[in-house]
Amino acid sequence: MDKLAVSILGGSGYAGGEALRLLLFHPHVTVQQVSSQRFADKRVTRVHPNLRGVTELTFCRLDQVEPCDLLLLCLPHGQAMGRIDKFLENAPRIIDLSGDFRLRRIEDYQQWYAQPHKRPDLLAEFVYGIPELHRDSMRDARCVSSAGCNATAVILALSPLFRAGLVQRDHTVVEVKVGSSEGGNAAGEASHHPERSGCVRSFKPVAHRHTAEIVQELGAGEPLGIHFSATAIEMVRGVLATCHVFLKDDLDEKDVWKVYREAYGAEPFIRIVKEREGLYRLPEPKLLAGTNYCDIGFVRDPHSRRLVVISALDNLMKGAAGQAVQALNIMHGFEETAGLDFCGLHP
Amino acid sequence: MDKLAVSILGGSGYAGGEALRLLLFHPHVTVQQVSSQRFADKRVTRVHPNLRGVTELTFCRLDQVEPCDLLLLCLPHGQAMGRIDKFLENAPRIIDLSGDFRLRRIEDYQQWYAQPHKRPDLLAEFVYGIPELHRDSMRDARCVSSAGCNATAVILALSPLFRAGLVQRDHTVVEVKVGSSEGGNAAGEASHHPERSGCVRSFKPVAHRHTAEIVQELGAGEPLGIHFSATAIEMVRGVLATCHVFLKDDLDEKDVWKVYREAYGAEPFIRIVKEREGLYRLPEPKLLAGTNYCDIGFVRDPHSRRLVVISALDNLMKGAAGQAVQALNIMHGFEETAGLDFCGLHP
Amino acid sequence: MDKLAVSILGGSGYAGGEALRLLLFHPHVTVQQVSSQRFADKRVTRVHPNLRGVTELTFCRLDQVEPCDLLLLCLPHGQAMGRIDKFLENAPRIIDLSGDFRLRRIEDYQQWYAQPHKRPDLLAEFVYGIPELHRDSMRDARCVSSAGCNATAVILALSPLFRAGLVQRDHTVVEVKVGSSEGGNAAGEASHHPERSGCVRSFKPVAHRHTAEIVQELGAGEPLGIHFSATAIEMVRGVLATCHVFLKDDLDEKDVWKVYREAYGAEPFIRIVKEREGLYRLPEPKLLAGTNYCDIGFVRDPHSRRLVVISALDNLMKGAAGQAVQALNIMHGFEETAGLDFCGLHP
Amino acid sequence: MDKLAVSILGGSGYAGGEALRLLLFHPHVTVQQVSSQRFADKRVTRVHPNLRGVTELTFCRLDQVEPCDLLLLCLPHGQAMGRIDKFLENAPRIIDLSGDFRLRRIEDYQQWYAQPHKRPDLLAEFVYGIPELHRDSMRDARCVSSAGCNATAVILALSPLFRAGLVQRDHTVVEVKVGSSEGGNAAGEASHHPERSGCVRSFKPVAHRHTAEIVQELGAGEPLGIHFSATAIEMVRGVLATCHVFLKDDLDEKDVWKVYREAYGAEPFIRIVKEREGLYRLPEPKLLAGTNYCDIGFVRDPHSRRLVVISALDNLMKGAAGQAVQALNIMHGFEETAGLDFCGLHP
Repeated sequence: MDKLAVSILGGSGYAGGEALRLLLFHPHVTVQQVSSQRFADKRVTRVHPNLRGVTELTFCRLDQVEPCDLLLLCLPHGQAMGRIDKFLENAPRIIDLSGDFRLRRIEDYQQWYAQPHKRPDLLAEFVYGIPELHRDSMRDARCVSSAGCNATAVILALSPLFRAGLVQRDHTVVEVKVGSSEGGNAAGEASHHPERSGCVRSFKPVAHRHTAEIVQELGAGEPLGIHFSATAIEMVRGVLATCHVFLKDDLDEKDVWKVYREAYGAEPFIRIVKEREGLYRLPEPKLLAGTNYCDIGFVRDPHSRRLVVISALDNLMKGAAGQAVQALNIMHGFEETAGLDFCGLHP
Repeated sequence: MDKLAVSILGGSGYAGGEALRLLLFHPHVTVQQVSSQRFADKRVTRVHPNLRGVTELTFCRLDQVEPCDLLLLCLPHGQAMGRIDKFLENAPRIIDLSGDFRLRRIEDYQQWYAQPHKRPDLLAEFVYGIPELHRDSMRDARCVSSAGCNATAVILALSPLFRAGLVQRDHTVVEVKVGSSEGGNAAGEASHHPERSGCVRSFKPVAHRHTAEIVQELGAGEPLGIHFSATAIEMVRGVLATCHVFLKDDLDEKDVWKVYREAYGAEPFIRIVKEREGLYRLPEPKLLAGTNYCDIGFVRDPHSRRLVVISALDNLMKGAAGQAVQALNIMHGFEETAGLDFCGLHP
Repeated sequence: MDKLAVSILGGSGYAGGEALRLLLFHPHVTVQQVSSQRFADKRVTRVHPNLRGVTELTFCRLDQVEPCDLLLLCLPHGQAMGRIDKFLENAPRIIDLSGDFRLRRIEDYQQWYAQPHKRPDLLAEFVYGIPELHRDSMRDARCVSSAGCNATAVILALSPLFRAGLVQRDHTVVEVKVGSSEGGNAAGEASHHPERSGCVRSFKPVAHRHTAEIVQELGAGEPLGIHFSATAIEMVRGVLATCHVFLKDDLDEKDVWKVYREAYGAEPFIRIVKEREGLYRLPEPKLLAGTNYCDIGFVRDPHSRRLVVISALDNLMKGAAGQAVQALNIMHGFEETAGLDFCGLHP
Repeated sequence: MDKLAVSILGGSGYAGGEALRLLLFHPHVTVQQVSSQRFADKRVTRVHPNLRGVTELTFCRLDQVEPCDLLLLCLPHGQAMGRIDKFLENAPRIIDLSGDFRLRRIEDYQQWYAQPHKRPDLLAEFVYGIPELHRDSMRDARCVSSAGCNATAVILALSPLFRAGLVQRDHTVVEVKVGSSEGGNAAGEASHHPERSGCVRSFKPVAHRHTAEIVQELGAGEPLGIHFSATAIEMVRGVLATCHVFLKDDLDEKDVWKVYREAYGAEPFIRIVKEREGLYRLPEPKLLAGTNYCDIGFVRDPHSRRLVVISALDNLMKGAAGQAVQALNIMHGFEETAGLDFCGLHP
């Protein structure tokens, strides 16, 4: 079988680098081109030094990109929607990792991204990129919009409960703890090591964009109170979402277990982590660096109707490039785990 | 004026070490004795190497402690209540840093500490050790029970709102991010560096003991829904409390500012941190290492009635030894900031 | 072809865990048993949580180990030599990761390990486990003794220069910077997070055991002045060796480059890292976590005859389990990189 | 007594911020002005958030600086020498923290700073700013040039041995491990947190400028082989210098102890750290954050004539602002420790 020819646009960023790493080892894919305006004509190893010895590829410019089987767009937010026609000319399938096509309602986009959407006509065409929720739509999709990293962690954590209607819809409070790679590879004062190191920075206590994705996917069109905050901590990769939901009924942990088991028992990249002993009784992002897992656990508060659901993932993997490759596999009928079998390191 | 003679019991732990550091530089105090069963007859610098060149003191055993003006008890939880008569013979005043005398109701103690209280008769005698709430009672107190570190952060963050009756009483969700020194100086698997390093460990998603203190101090005897979780992150010192409260009325940030201004405008150790620019617009624990500050800030969610109140402190200082010295100053009529003027480091 | 049946003894430690991770994904190996006295009958995921979803194996006791094709010994130092006969009954081939059989001269063992060797008769049978130096001997070897992690970094860094006789033999100064996983998985005061975090601990400024291995391999029987120090820094995995050698002749960097190119040009796991731009111009251990690479670079001091040679590796991989699997591949005629193709993460 | 009026130029940088912190609490000093071109008219707490509640000062521009008793120059390298006449008009005494006036020989400056010196006539006027070596000259000095941070660590570590002529002069190898604050507060790719975090970056394996200062101060005019390397590690503040010297004679540790005791026994900011037990047997920079100490220890290699001398300090304190305040105290006849009594934190 011929390998699938994939080109990565915006390949010098962190998500682009992860996509490149994954696809270079993917059994059914060949990386055709990788673009970067800033590093055009330089080797990809100039910015992704982990790929030394693995590839001799150099970056091309965006205007040098040639037709291929799939384009993986890792461009900054706002760039994909302006050039989407050109991209669709170049490839029959597209996976976009930016926020451009994640929201189905144009007014949501304008509210949360504070700019008009350039191609509202295409919003309906993009499948929201969480395979565990939209696997069937992905199979025939021309376009997939990869989900936000924090949004993925929260949606996967809470979807089974919301779908089953077990949760009070107004009182959910979610706090994500995130690493510095979430801010991308552009240096600035906020990421200057002496300032960022050791931080517990409440960088988005309210009004985080990913809230819109979470409400869209969990609310199923109905209004929903998701109170979301994001705190940056000393970590490079990783998201831990701590989700406080309030149960309608007095379910015990066994009942909750069943709900998750039914929802995710067959999922290759979701592990229900809830153990009685050891140091890793609940999900822990550091175990997931480089993997495509989303680990999910939960604890019932004995003093109230609160259930604390905890999920962890690698923001560059299940929160970006890994999930995109998972979508690519589904779109092309490959085994869903192809190229994604790294299980993570300990310690 | 004669200096106050203070002895520190349980002085080899982290809180004991901080108390010792503070008192060695205190203008009105002399450190009489420091006890440690394990390190008896060794120099205190054996376990507190930062004090090299500052003191030649050696640890004594508990049974060698002599009468003094004040005993600072830094013993493990459960030890103070068994020996309290002996301690009260030795000193007219006591500050206890353990959890033994923090809860006013004996049934609360039994519920949260899972053991019977040995001296319920004394519970009423101990003033709960947050000066900003109980300064007047402290002035004449014989006994002060220093507050829990997380509890201090949360109580100081929320007290003005709850006292003013501005908050819905059932839906408060609080998550604290804590460092490894909160676990004390006893090594174990959970604190083994390769395991603990880089962690985002949901170690107490529910049922944290400090919940009882928070409910006691904020609830003023009425039932109160405080949904509390604690997550251990990569940090040695420090607590950041992120408190999600829901306002009864649609107050804006100016209204909230006034509430905090009135409550804390004259407090020497509380700073309202809420800035429009810069990297430190909200409280940040790493700036507070070694200081007695509790920094408090807040952000109003434009999409709901949620107010996110954020507080930070050093768990060994305002959360333990520093707050105890503050209480000591109040009890003895010293200026409240004596020995507590270190302002912290940046970066 | 039947898969090679391998059992791992002492599989609950960090090196054992890495060996297990590698072999579970190895195309030509099946893991038969994994022993742990402490965790016998528990799932291996109890201590290696990264393997959740990958394996259902449980630990067995040492006395339950059955015959297999190869035994991988990950026991504490001093245990392999006492039971070696039993192990050789169980398997035709053995790779020992401890220090027991690394030194060829019994008097070296006694000097550096401060105990008598129990089986000096077998010292000659063990091939020293650095494939780049002893590949040919490994092919027919019954026993391989995996090299020390720091020793591997230094020997690989310096071997080409010493073999070519380019270096003054008395003045080499080597300093390695190491992470906390090098101390193993047993918790103690030295590894207690509040103490170990942020450390720059001069834990072995002189008299580090690995000196003996380095002298043995570089000296080729002749006396050699290698002045070795080890400093523990804030890091979990990784070794960076900074080697200061003094050249006999005034070689420039091009000359040196040729020497390394000739020595390692065809090596699959050695990369010569020496770039003019970018952030990773010289070897960097954080890029190597989970990989079997040893990256080597060098810089010539323009003010003297000093050449600074810098090497980096993951102490649990190329410094332990990875190099052992590389040896296993050579011993059994597999492609040398089988099971070792993970290229590492960035950032 | 009137307080000394000091102005700090270039006060928005890290060393400037530390100088400001120290002087705000100094018993004999009043801070008159603090300049910053970039942050002129903003509060100093905008960039030094640890000073909130401590000062209401705002930054002024350089051209607004008024006459005062002493100017503390914290400007970038190369700026002081161009404006020195203007500065000397403004103040009878100057302490310069940059590299401009550290080297006594103009040709050394040109070699190491790769630019011509603008005021070679003034080089002889500046006293090199290590009080332990030049205290007497400082007393009457008009100008002091504060020493480089790494240079201070190395010079203090080795000066007693070199002055006593105990060391082979050609073979000293020194490696310093440094934190990210040494690079200043200007953000860039090299300090971007995802890249800098967890680094062991060999950023100056050869040709570090501080070599010139070290040779100047230790060599006493004679040629000297100091082979210096600097490695950046995961740390914000702190320097650890590991100095490998080779003794002419077979001195034991007691002999060496005497040498250091004689040199530094009366020094208020040097502690000889060499203990038999505990976790902090040798100097450790993390204990020194915020202090003006330089801790020094040593270990004799039993296998050779090597002595490993280890020193630690805080690069912004004893390596910059703290040492400058120490010089200020000496220049004005204050007690040498005034404003410098913070003893550091543990853990």
